[in-house]
Amino acid sequence: MRSRGARKGRLTPLVMSGRTLRVLDQLVLPSRERWLSCRDARSVARAIRDMNVRGAPAIGVAAGYGLALEALRLPDSRLLPGLRAAARTLRSARPTAVNLMWAVDRVMAAVRAAGRRPGPVRAAVAAEARAIEAGDLAANLKMGRLGAALLKRRGAVLTHCNTGALATAGHGTALGVIRTAHARGLVSLVYVDETRPYLQGARLTAWELARERIPFVLITDSMAGHFMKLKKVGAVFVGADRVAANGDFANKIGTYSLAVLAKAHGVPFYAVAPTSTVDLKTRTGDSIPIEERSSVEVTRIAGRRIAPRGTRAAHPAFDVTPGRLVTAIVTEAGVARRPYRPSLARLLRKARRFTPTNR
Amino acid sequence: MRSRGARKGRLTPLVMSGRTLRVLDQLVLPSRERWLSCRDARSVARAIRDMNVRGAPAIGVAAGYGLALEALRLPDSRLLPGLRAAARTLRSARPTAVNLMWAVDRVMAAVRAAGRRPGPVRAAVAAEARAIEAGDLAANLKMGRLGAALLKRRGAVLTHCNTGALATAGHGTALGVIRTAHARGLVSLVYVDETRPYLQGARLTAWELARERIPFVLITDSMAGHFMKLKKVGAVFVGADRVAANGDFANKIGTYSLAVLAKAHGVPFYAVAPTSTVDLKTRTGDSIPIEERSSVEVTRIAGRRIAPRGTRAAHPAFDVTPGRLVTAIVTEAGVARRPYRPSLARLLRKARRFTPTNR
Repeated sequence: MRSRGARKGRLTPLVMSGRTLRVLDQLVLPSRERWLSCRDARSVARAIRDMNVRGAPAIGVAAGYGLALEALRLPDSRLLPGLRAAARTLRSARPTAVNLMWAVDRVMAAVRAAGRRPGPVRAAVAAEARAIEAGDLAANLKMGRLGAALLKRRGAVLTHCNTGALATAGHGTALGVIRTAHARGLVSLVYVDETRPYLQGARLTAWELARERIPFVLITDSMAGHFMKLKKVGAVFVGADRVAANGDFANKIGTYSLAVLAKAHGVPFYAVAPTSTVDLKTRTGDSIPIEERSSVEVTRIAGRRIAPRGTRAAHPAFDVTPGRLVTAIVTEAGVARRPYRPSLARLLRKARRFTPTNR
Repeated sequence: MRSRGARKGRLTPLVMSGRTLRVLDQLVLPSRERWLSCRDARSVARAIRDMNVRGAPAIGVAAGYGLALEALRLPDSRLLPGLRAAARTLRSARPTAVNLMWAVDRVMAAVRAAGRRPGPVRAAVAAEARAIEAGDLAANLKMGRLGAALLKRRGAVLTHCNTGALATAGHGTALGVIRTAHARGLVSLVYVDETRPYLQGARLTAWELARERIPFVLITDSMAGHFMKLKKVGAVFVGADRVAANGDFANKIGTYSLAVLAKAHGVPFYAVAPTSTVDLKTRTGDSIPIEERSSVEVTRIAGRRIAPRGTRAAHPAFDVTPGRLVTAIVTEAGVARRPYRPSLARLLRKARRFTPTNR
């Protein structure tokens, strides 16, 4: 079987080909472009756990193909118990990644619906894995079109972290909008925040843009305000890890500062995320828990210590941006505007009616 | 001869002792605490050029002692021509550092005033070098007291870059205020911006604070807004490289973003700089030229490439913060308030009357 991304020659972090899932190793980018070959669910689970593949949508896609690899590999006699064991292995790879559980559940539901005959079960697993990937890619392409339409004239845009093909089934969310807008001649330059501490901007977004020859300039996170003051930035596009019912959203640390700076300079500020990221049960951003990660990720860069031994560093992985600072939230079901509570609820009803991949 | 800082057991980047100037090598901090020994003006000039010593006030002090070393070393017959040659060598070490020219000019003026007899000339050079150091330290201690008095209650403060003892003859400017305020029980915690791209916060400010057991937490520059939003930051103190007549000032890149964030959160934002930094001929910040440094300083950290080969990076070394975002400017002659034009002019007249070290 072949994945849809691979068929189109599109940049994807995952390429299914025959009985092998090839995983672009994001731990060694951009210094090396190394592909790992996974031939069973266990090796896919390892790639997820070790963060060779990252980004919630990409992890979901990888898990679907992990089950597809098992279906190809297992003998008829062990097909159903083998798939159930693989599902457990995959689910435990990163227990907090919701897309991972969702993708595994979805494939296993297709298995149950297919009955007990090996032929239809194998076909169902393969079809569902492909559908998960295709659904994510389609949502990203749709968000790309809706987001690009928000730009009224050619100019420079700014983005934070990596929300591109590498984090998804392809194209990306915020970076997907920038891709589509660039293809339409609306983006003259991309300001790429390096995104300390993990440097996803410097390592991954720069790599994606260089590969597609989209002009960009790398900046430290501390330079964004300076370039806004010089009127160099026409719009900011960022992703979102969780959107609350009122439009507050959690995203990579540094997003909130960007939103405040954008507001102070009259620069439109857009969040781009599929409706699966919107959680109406979270009423406001105040109730989104902020993960505190290891201090070592701040005090060391690429393995080298940059601060004195014993230095305590803070490392909130995310911050929360209030909806009042957000010009619009772009989803695959449409563009939400203030007041966000009714606008997001309307988009979610629409998404549940029309999008088969929506949770 | 011994420098005043050394006599007091205070942290200084420069210690004059007998016929040797010891220079704390800031290129290898914090991983190593290495002292270089300079015995003539040529080796002092090399330490300035190679940035083993940095910070405009510290460079001026080093240059003064460079001439003092020559005066101790030269035979009577070559004393005056030797000092003039050393002055040329020192001036050329970093042509843009104004404090360097000023310190060399000041010592050479003392030489001329002392006549042609070797004894009085040697005494004048030593006295003037010590006076330059003592004047800078005295200004910093005064700014420390004036700045600390601005804090009405104990709380956490935030700072950017390194403006401490390492950048001056001792104590520091913005970090000097934090030192004094901590000694008075007014500082519970210092948020230290790591200050990309050079990481002066992570490397140097963290080292100074750890050495004096002042509690601090290291953050990436992108986290400042998040902690202000959580109401963790009571005040921001930063240095200034050049203050315009209207209170606009140039400082390390990232300062402007901090000022916007502080304003948005109602956090007092203070610049701390001696009156020698105020340039009344520069009417507003718009006419301050911004030095653009090498892209490599952004794309590499500690010698390691973090972005794809060929990546273009912007590297403005400074940004300009408008006076309207600044709560007050602390100088050794007093605290300037809005409107800054008359307030700064008044402080400069006062400084010129009373401060012997003022240009």
